[in-house]
This record gives sequence, structure tokens and C-alpha cells, in this order.
Amino acid sequence: MKAVKIGLLGLGTVGTGVISVLKRNADEIARRAGSEITVVAAAVRDLSKPRDIDSSGIRITDDPMSVVNDPEIDIVVELIGGDGVALDGVNKALENGKHVVTANKALIALHGNEIFKTARSKGLVVAFESAVAGGIPIIKSIREGLSANRIEWLAGIINGTSNYILTQMTEGGRNFDDVLAEAQALGYAEADPAFDIEGTDAAHKLTILASIAFGISLQFDKVYQEGITNISSEDITYAQKFGYRIKHLGLARRTDRGIELRVHPTLIPEQKLIANVNDVMNAVLVQGDAVGPTLYYGAGAGSEPTASSVVADLVDVVRTITTDPENRVPHLAFQPDTLSDLAILPIEEIDTAYYLRMGVINRPGVLAAITEIFGNKGISIETISQKENGDGKEDGEDKVSIILLTHNTKEGHLCDAIKQIEQLDTVYGSVTRLRVETLS
Amino acid sequence: MKAVKIGLLGLGTVGTGVISVLKRNADEIARRAGSEITVVAAAVRDLSKPRDIDSSGIRITDDPMSVVNDPEIDIVVELIGGDGVALDGVNKALENGKHVVTANKALIALHGNEIFKTARSKGLVVAFESAVAGGIPIIKSIREGLSANRIEWLAGIINGTSNYILTQMTEGGRNFDDVLAEAQALGYAEADPAFDIEGTDAAHKLTILASIAFGISLQFDKVYQEGITNISSEDITYAQKFGYRIKHLGLARRTDRGIELRVHPTLIPEQKLIANVNDVMNAVLVQGDAVGPTLYYGAGAGSEPTASSVVADLVDVVRTITTDPENRVPHLAFQPDTLSDLAILPIEEIDTAYYLRMGVINRPGVLAAITEIFGNKGISIETISQKENGDGKEDGEDKVSIILLTHNTKEGHLCDAIKQIEQLDTVYGSVTRLRVETLS
Repeated sequence: MKAVKIGLLGLGTVGTGVISVLKRNADEIARRAGSEITVVAAAVRDLSKPRDIDSSGIRITDDPMSVVNDPEIDIVVELIGGDGVALDGVNKALENGKHVVTANKALIALHGNEIFKTARSKGLVVAFESAVAGGIPIIKSIREGLSANRIEWLAGIINGTSNYILTQMTEGGRNFDDVLAEAQALGYAEADPAFDIEGTDAAHKLTILASIAFGISLQFDKVYQEGITNISSEDITYAQKFGYRIKHLGLARRTDRGIELRVHPTLIPEQKLIANVNDVMNAVLVQGDAVGPTLYYGAGAGSEPTASSVVADLVDVVRTITTDPENRVPHLAFQPDTLSDLAILPIEEIDTAYYLRMGVINRPGVLAAITEIFGNKGISIETISQKENGDGKEDGEDKVSIILLTHNTKEGHLCDAIKQIEQLDTVYGSVTRLRVETLS
Repeated sequence: MKAVKIGLLGLGTVGTGVISVLKRNADEIARRAGSEITVVAAAVRDLSKPRDIDSSGIRITDDPMSVVNDPEIDIVVELIGGDGVALDGVNKALENGKHVVTANKALIALHGNEIFKTARSKGLVVAFESAVAGGIPIIKSIREGLSANRIEWLAGIINGTSNYILTQMTEGGRNFDDVLAEAQALGYAEADPAFDIEGTDAAHKLTILASIAFGISLQFDKVYQEGITNISSEDITYAQKFGYRIKHLGLARRTDRGIELRVHPTLIPEQKLIANVNDVMNAVLVQGDAVGPTLYYGAGAGSEPTASSVVADLVDVVRTITTDPENRVPHLAFQPDTLSDLAILPIEEIDTAYYLRMGVINRPGVLAAITEIFGNKGISIETISQKENGDGKEDGEDKVSIILLTHNTKEGHLCDAIKQIEQLDTVYGSVTRLRVETLS
């Protein structure tokens, strides 16, 4: 199985993420793609800049054209940004017959129509999942997963910087300037934040989403664009009083009179799922005529989340160019001869937290007897609470409920403890047991 | 462009949905797939049963084998359910060299390993997006969208009936039996609900999700399974007091000791997005090592949502068998020569609701003057509220803020109204204007 060879243009945040992910998950990725994927060259702007990555086996150069002209390279990954060198590199890569993967939303929004035309004429792939909403597979979901639908509208929180600022203003009651300064200190906003907070970045992404949703060409110049710079904490407070949250949305909607394409701060009813997407997270809500509303949520930026989509695009290209086209994607995601025989744990062996409820006679020592059993089994209690349960009295004594939350423990130990508790003469009935998962 | 011909096995809820969607969206689907997709035959159990669909051009038969043996048919869509006739039909279709699309979770969970082996040996596609979480493209998202990741765990609300019952118990403080009876009356639960409320349906789906997430074979018999029949409204209330919601989850997690595969009611912190997925909706949370947490939300069942995934699978197969493999999925979702030139509306032409905030002098007649302007422009006011804003006094008169929510109106009309309002001598400063979207 010949390795597929990759050349990177740009080795900043996303580029180093791509190298880390491809190295760390090399085995799983090859099992999925049916081929190894190896970075053989990377073009950087400044050769002298120190880089915190394992670049063994990678030719580092400051000449991007030497990467796109390298005959050994099958796929060029463009991570420079903007539409100067990036555009030249992509055009030259296509001219040289190489597939292209790019994370560059401005490039696609502004020059995609021509780039795709060139790619089609040469039978090449240009993949751009990472250009919109970072690690969320939103391009694939709309373009392939929802292909049965007439898309009616979509609405996305697609700029993490703006969402972080609005979330902090909402939760802390703070003003725009303070939060922006903090976001810059944390690296969530650029030194020159205009691109994010004025809505340009979101408008680039909305251009791409609208195009694949409605089957129209890319038309960035038609997007109405308003940023978050005029949002005051006062408006956030009033909106909350009326039951709304303020989010910066990209909205694309079909109407009888034409298509609405607009990016602006928006009040959304607070009970909507998307109104609760906070901090730097992104989400896109897509309304199809058959499927109804669907939502896609995840990290919209960052080194490895963006790399996740870049590498997924690489796997797509590799599956296309190396395998029988009728079996492009393996049924069970991994190539059939590479399935693992990992052990499936019996339920007694799982490790989780528990909610327990038990009926007890309210007698001195009852709590001590119960907690002693947990202690002996090495089970740590997070919360214990005693409630009147209205069951009345037994032999003149009060019956109450004990509700208890444990920390993580092995299910087998917990079951042993429950058996012992149910044998206490102060405990009546059986113990109700539910598992607790914090899902993080 | 030759039409691709489909034979259906089963013409119940999902089958009629597939026919409706393929007919209604025929043009958009052909523009995406590069070919027309036409249902030419459908096998039903009872020919005499009346059906509320347009079956023109479709041969209706009660012999499923006549469909899978029909040489005209390219793709067989299996919607019978179970693993009797369905299994025979799928096996025979593959033997006859036909691609298969199925919505049958039991079939895949129990017999997928053998079915996929047969399909591979014949170079055929077996697609099953609709078998898990209805209209949510979760198979595609994990198998292709997250292919860069080592999946650490996933947790899904993947049985709509159970989620409906738990939501109603939570919101209405009602008990299990009442809500189950209501769910049956509404058609959200079967007359024999055991399959859903005992967790078997969720266990089938979890089997499939775990397999594509971890690269293991399908192992339904290893899934620990617990339903929602023992959940009391008491436990729901106590859980809420501790800050949790109770959801029926399918959980698959990698640990050093093996893989956890379990289906059971679970307490989840109430601020988590997935804890707020209610009624019959489904959602799957997937944690990848590169991308972090991602969530996929949508309708998990129903005629058209399930048909949405069935038809998406058909489009995938058609793109594979009819187009140049290197251009299987068009860049902009639709075939390049079929892009529309739909008009993009200027912002003045959009129709939405608005939040307005303005500073006014608290003088008799100020509200009347403002509302008259809105009335003249045909703009209807939903809510109007006056607040002290602490700006003090002007010429001895109080300054207050007026906050106002409008119903939907054309942006151009609203801007005209704002201009007039800003000219009133009782209004100072400029009017703050934000758009309100209910997103439904």
C-alpha cells in the first residue's frame, strides 16, 4: 500500500495541528483511508522561526512554489490564508495535476467559482471542509447528508471570537471593550480584530454555506454584513428580560422574492438549542423540507479541531484516488481487514457515578450504617440528602428517602454495596440506582 | 442522462416518505446527484390496503422477490424491518448485483458483518444512514467527517419514544404509565412499546455507532441494555434538585480495559446541550481526540426525516456509480452546470422582527407619537416597555429608555420609521436596532 504524499503551504496553528494529528493517529487514519498519509514538505514564511513540532521526514522550505511543483506530492494543503500567495499556490497545484485541500474561507468565498472550474477541467478534487465552522463536518452534512432536501434556511454561529465576546458580556454583565481586551489576551481575538468583530469572517463562511445549500454560485459581494461592535450590555440585559439571547448569526433564507444573505447580531428565543451555544463554540442550524431542523455543533477554530477537518478531507481524497470507487467509504468506517478485536467490557467492569434513592426508617445510626458500607467498598459519596417521602410511619418511626450521589466507582462494587444496604433492617424496599454521566 | 431505477421493499411510513421526497424534490435531487432517481417498483404486504401516495409509474407487487430480481432495477431500498423477509431480500439483491440502501437497524446490528462481506465481494454498496437517528447524518459524520480522530466516546439520545416519555414526565411531573398511554395515542409509541422502552432499539443503534467509531465488528450481544420502565417521577424531581436531567442514553466509550457499550437511563448535568434535547428529537454527542466534542441534532424518526437519510444514501450511490470518481461530490453540492441564478435580496427587502431601544424625554404624548409612526408604516408592535435608564434629567424632565419588539416587517419600512422617530424632539440620540429571529 503506497503512502499518499502531502505538501503543506503554511505551518502555523493549523499546519502544526495537521502534522500532530496525522502522526498521532497515523494507524487509525490509515485503517480508515486504506493508505498511509505522509507529510513530506511544508512551506513556511520564516525558516528561522522556532516550531514546536516533530518535523522529522518533512522538508521545510520558504519557497511555496517548490512544494506545489514537487512531483512526489499528491495533495497540496493550503493553510496560508488570504488570497495572495495562497491563490497562486492553489492555481499552480491544480495546473500541476495535484488535488487541493484548503482551510481558506476568503479564498473560496472570493475565488471559488474560478478555482472549482479549473479543478473540474483537470478532474481534481478541491476540498474545503475546514473553511467553515472548523471541526464541524458542516459542508459534508449539507452537501451529502441532506442531499434529499430542499434547504429552506440555515443559521449559524460561525465566528468563535464574536460568540466568545457576546457570551462573556451576557454571563458577566461586562462591556464590549473589556471583553475584547480579555479575548485578545487569551488568544481568542487577533491584535487587529476587525475581520472577526465586523462580520467579514462570518460573511465569507455564509457565502460558502448558502452556495452549497441553495445551488447558487459564490456571491460574497451580496452578503449584508454587520458586526458586534455596537452591542451594549444594556441591550443584552433587556433582551434577556424579554426571554432572548443575543448571538452573532449568519443567516441564509430562501423567500419567494429571492435569497436573504445576512450576517448580524440577532435576538434568539433563549430556549432554542442554538441560543445556548456559548464561548468559542460554533453551531449551524439547517432547516430542510424533509428532515426539518438539524443542528451541528463543535469547535469552530483552533489547531486540532481545524486539522480534524483538513485531515478528513485528505482521507476523502485518498479514498477516492486509491480504492475501488464503488467501495470508496468502508461500511464500518475502517477498512474491513483492519477491524480491531478490542474487548467489550461487561457492565460490572464499567466505571461511572451513580444516583441512588432508598427508603429508610429515620432511626439514629441509619446514615452511619449506609456510609460505612460505601466506605468499605471504597466508594466515595459526593452528596447525601434526606427527604420526607410521605410514606408515613412504620412501628411508630418515620420513613424517609435518602438520595445519594456517588463519585466514579466500578459498577460491580456499587452492586455489592447495594446488596448489603438492602439487607439492613432500617432500609425497606429496593434501592433505585441510576447512572450519572457528566459527558466531558 | 439515464435515470437510476429504484425498487422499494416495503411501502409503510418510510416508504411513502421516500416516494414523496423523490417526487417533490426531483429537480434538486437530480441537480445534486447528476442523474434522475426514479422509483419503478415497490413490494407491499397487502395489495388491498389503501395508500395515500401518488404511485403513478410505480409497479406495486406483493412479491418482494420480483423486485430484487427485476433486471431494470439498479438499487434496492429495504424498508420492511426485522430480519426475516428483509434479510432474504437484501441477500438476494446483492447476489443479483444490486446496490442496497436500508433503514433497518436490527438487520445491520445483527447481520451486518455478513451482509458487508457479501457486498464487498461483489463490489456493491450497502448504505444505512437512516438506520441510526433518522434524518441526522450521523453515520456520514463519524465515518467521513471525523475520520481524522481517534474517537474517545459517544453518547446518544437515539430512541425518540423514550425521550418523549422522559421529557413529558420531566415537564409535566407526570408518571410513566400516563405518558406512555399518551405517546401511544399520538403515534410516538407502538401498541407493543417494549422494543423502544426496554432499550432494544437503542442497543441496535449503539451497536452500529460503536462499530464505526472504534473500528470493531458489530457486536449487539455485548451491549448492556436497560430501558426507562423503572423511572419514577420522584427520581426525575430529585435529579432536577441536584441540577440534572434524566435521559435515556446509548453510551460507547474506549477505556484501557476495553470498550463500554451500554444503554440505560442517565443523569446528565442540566447545562449540557444534550440535556436539553427534548420530546421525540434525537442527538448524538461524539468526542474525538482532535476535534473535541461535537453534537448532531435532528429528528430521529418519522416519515420524511427518515426518508431524508434514505434518499441521501441513494444520492451517494448514484454519485458513485454515474460520475467520474474523482468528482463524485460536486464542489458546491449541485452539478456545476445546474447552479441557479436566484436573486439575492438587498437588506432593505428582508422580512424579520426587530428589537429597538431609544432614549426619550418622559413627556405626555411621546409613546403616542412613536406608535403612530409605526402604525403609518404598517409595522405591528409586539411589546413595548419603558425603563428608567439613569441618564438623569433634561430641562427638568425625566429621560427614560423605550424598549420595543416588533412583529415581522420589511427592513426598509422599519428604517423609514426609525428615521422619523429620530427626528421627534422627544427622542434623543440614535435608535438601537437589532434583528429578532425565532428560527422556526
